[in-house]
Amino acid sequence: MAIREGITTLCYLERDDNYLMLHRISKKNDINKDKWIGVGGHLEDNESPEECIKREIYEETGFNIELESLEYRAVITFVSEKGDYEMMNLFTAKAPDSEPKECDEGKLEWVPKAEVYNLNLWEGDKIFLRRLAESRKFFSMKLVYDKEDKLIEAFLDGRDLMK
Amino acid sequence: MAIREGITTLCYLERDDNYLMLHRISKKNDINKDKWIGVGGHLEDNESPEECIKREIYEETGFNIELESLEYRAVITFVSEKGDYEMMNLFTAKAPDSEPKECDEGKLEWVPKAEVYNLNLWEGDKIFLRRLAESRKFFSMKLVYDKEDKLIEAFLDGRDLMK
Repeated sequence: MAIREGITTLCYLERDDNYLMLHRISKKNDINKDKWIGVGGHLEDNESPEECIKREIYEETGFNIELESLEYRAVITFVSEKGDYEMMNLFTAKAPDSEPKECDEGKLEWVPKAEVYNLNLWEGDKIFLRRLAESRKFFSMKLVYDKEDKLIEAFLDGRDLMK
Repeated sequence: MAIREGITTLCYLERDDNYLMLHRISKKNDINKDKWIGVGGHLEDNESPEECIKREIYEETGFNIELESLEYRAVITFVSEKGDYEMMNLFTAKAPDSEPKECDEGKLEWVPKAEVYNLNLWEGDKIFLRRLAESRKFFSMKLVYDKEDKLIEAFLDGRDLMK
């Protein structure tokens, strides 16, 4: 199996007005340790973003997501002054009616969309979550973090959001 | 300078009803040798897709493209049974009124959109060029080539186009 270095997917599964959030408390040395994020992971072998996110959703929740319910919402470029670089393909999807299975990467919880901002999120995630709520138009975002994980730059479709 | 392995950008610059096409006749050992494509190239360092395509357009045409005229149209996953893998971020953009400078990667030519299909194109490029003409909605496409560069699989937003 080949991991596509620097290319990932993330999905916020939707049910009613909730997102399925993953509290990353299980893995040691997790870059997302103790943060709340969606489900997802690295592209493997020759996967497209859709193939990757369908596999990751299945592995982490047990849900077999229909293609029709999957929506490709954004590409997020993460840069860290620690040296990390990641191009993340961001999806939302309608969740099935069943409950997710236990996830070995953390604890899954349905959280009302309006309340996700109160969780321990990456600063930049709050920015793209707000954009997801405001518009269904595809967007591109670049988020730059310093060595202390502080967000220092944010661009939406190339426009500087911090000016 | 770090090249982001497997992540590229491509742009079809538009003027009236033409695309600016690049006939790749200049470089030896060019995977696109003798093919007609848009302008673009590999992501470098910590570039976002927009930053990369703006730089590539400037290097290959001399055009300084405004962000407002740039439109992020698709992500294309290329797989070749030769072992190549590429995630290509596809843009279109309104070209300025001036003429492009000479490009050292090939010959630039304005080609009416309806006539690009008569050029020596990759088979899969014809499919995404048709999709660009049909809809402005963002899409994801996966194109798989065999060892003889024959297109053997094509998916639009995860749906098999060859069935």
